[in-house]
Amino acid sequence: MSRRAAMQVSRLLIEHPRNTTFSSAILNSTSTISNHGVFKSTPMLGSRHRSSMTSEEAKQEKAKLGADGRGAVSSYWGVAPPQLRKEDGSPWRWNSFRPWETYTADTSIDVKKHHDAKTLMDKFAYGTVQALKYPTQLFFQRRHICHAMLLETVAAVPGMVGGMMLHLKSLRRFEQSGGWIKALLEEAENERMHLMTFLELSQPKWSERALVIAVQGVFFNAYFAAYLISPKLAHRIVGYLEEEAVNSYTEFLHDLEKGLVENQPAPAIAIDYWRLPPNSTLKDVVTVIRADEAHHRDLNHFASDIQCQGHELKEYPAPLGYH
Amino acid sequence: MSRRAAMQVSRLLIEHPRNTTFSSAILNSTSTISNHGVFKSTPMLGSRHRSSMTSEEAKQEKAKLGADGRGAVSSYWGVAPPQLRKEDGSPWRWNSFRPWETYTADTSIDVKKHHDAKTLMDKFAYGTVQALKYPTQLFFQRRHICHAMLLETVAAVPGMVGGMMLHLKSLRRFEQSGGWIKALLEEAENERMHLMTFLELSQPKWSERALVIAVQGVFFNAYFAAYLISPKLAHRIVGYLEEEAVNSYTEFLHDLEKGLVENQPAPAIAIDYWRLPPNSTLKDVVTVIRADEAHHRDLNHFASDIQCQGHELKEYPAPLGYH
Ligand SMILES: [Fe+2]
Ligand SMILES: [Fe+2]
Ligand SMILES: [Fe+2]
Ligand SMILES: [Fe+2]
Repeated sequence: MSRRAAMQVSRLLIEHPRNTTFSSAILNSTSTISNHGVFKSTPMLGSRHRSSMTSEEAKQEKAKLGADGRGAVSSYWGVAPPQLRKEDGSPWRWNSFRPWETYTADTSIDVKKHHDAKTLMDKFAYGTVQALKYPTQLFFQRRHICHAMLLETVAAVPGMVGGMMLHLKSLRRFEQSGGWIKALLEEAENERMHLMTFLELSQPKWSERALVIAVQGVFFNAYFAAYLISPKLAHRIVGYLEEEAVNSYTEFLHDLEKGLVENQPAPAIAIDYWRLPPNSTLKDVVTVIRADEAHHRDLNHFASDIQCQGHELKEYPAPLGYH
Repeated sequence: MSRRAAMQVSRLLIEHPRNTTFSSAILNSTSTISNHGVFKSTPMLGSRHRSSMTSEEAKQEKAKLGADGRGAVSSYWGVAPPQLRKEDGSPWRWNSFRPWETYTADTSIDVKKHHDAKTLMDKFAYGTVQALKYPTQLFFQRRHICHAMLLETVAAVPGMVGGMMLHLKSLRRFEQSGGWIKALLEEAENERMHLMTFLELSQPKWSERALVIAVQGVFFNAYFAAYLISPKLAHRIVGYLEEEAVNSYTEFLHDLEKGLVENQPAPAIAIDYWRLPPNSTLKDVVTVIRADEAHHRDLNHFASDIQCQGHELKEYPAPLGYH
């Protein structure tokens, strides 16, 4: 019964205008959606309510629509975005996540857990992370938002690489994955949401953009190679990286408490994603993000433990359902 | 209200045993779960009800548990799989997908739509797919299940590659994706579910396994390069591949109707994934899979159209919510 109820609720939330048969289906649905302000055909970052659109945005919007007010992409594929609404009936503002992907972070998670490095592999992983940590700390110091923003562009890589590798392995070997593909892809998506949240508070300078492109080029290939050679080492390194992420968010919180970093209202995207109360602040956001990092720490150390003890990931169902 | 209801339903379905504090948390929860038959610590493929376990499976299962019946992976990370149940209270048998990821395929979708190749790029994409199609048809002829099984190992690659590329681009450019990352990853997962379904009906021979490894090596790299060079060409090629997938499932259906291929009961995984009635047959399964392929066709031609007309994917919200 409960499962059916969930499906019915989902159906209520989605009114998928697929069953249009005219060749202009996508035109009509796109423009209808635009006119009602559910989705703007502009990037998500600026996706605020129609009523709060600046005149510049309105101009851009108009330029994208044809003379008759129709969407500019002509396609007869009848594919239209679902029209989602919030529980209060207002339109859902985000394309990158949907109402049923929001969640309440488990802030009771232990933020001090540490995996003792006993084996040579563990020590190598720990050493690598420590070697990366000190120069980073020195570089950013108290610029926590900037630090967080740039590090999240790196943090979102391992889950995507691991998830892809397991996906390809599952196909190649004709075997199930035990849910680990999804668990790792969800981790990557969660990290990307951290980035999107910080992006609402600070915009990167051009030098930071250049740095991120270079770092991604190196890190993506390095992690790809590490995952090919030794997935258990790769997961252990991520486990330790996440321990440091927890630590650096703890410092962020301390500096917010001490007033060294200004507390400010939480971005709207964070309030919707973590289901926070409307008057939440940056401190609340950092607290839930830290809980996410602690969960990633546990998931990656667990994935490494499974393989260090001679098992395959698929033998142990992935801890899904947290996000 | 409806959104909250959906969340409450989800919470009812998940009893996430995270809040265990003992260092043996994972041991206990793993073995408890095994004992109740919710999840076996063996690969998903053999994940049948405890009551239907063969003696060999039971032996393997026992070998994996310690002398005290505890799980073999010792980890103190407190990470345990969610204990999911079906609406009738029976344990949820799949780790690779969860109850809220099941869906009803829209079989009213037009299975005859075709994108007219007008531009040079379209003609190149169409020609490539046609050149690949004829030898494949010649090779498999009426061995539809075998054909489907091997082709799904290829079909699950483009969505994963495209999703990953857009994810990395979103991080690099500090910008939203408009939901396209998720749409493409969902496509990849949907194709992998097609593979898992056919795997219940037929097992690959060693020569087929070798073929798939070779084909994946070539196709992954080729598609990766194509997506780097021209995403609109890559999506157009997939659009045409999906048109051919629809056609080949239509032929499969014809041969089932004519009795040239034996109709048989639908695999359990298909019944749960597409929410089919318990007495469904292979014919019903092929029908819903064909509808999925038609949806992939629309999504990929749409993605190509957006970019052919000089826009970026993120400007147009992805058609999410179908799967
Ligand atoms: Fe993060
Ligand atoms: Fe993290
Ligand atoms: Fe498929
Ligand atoms: Fe497909």
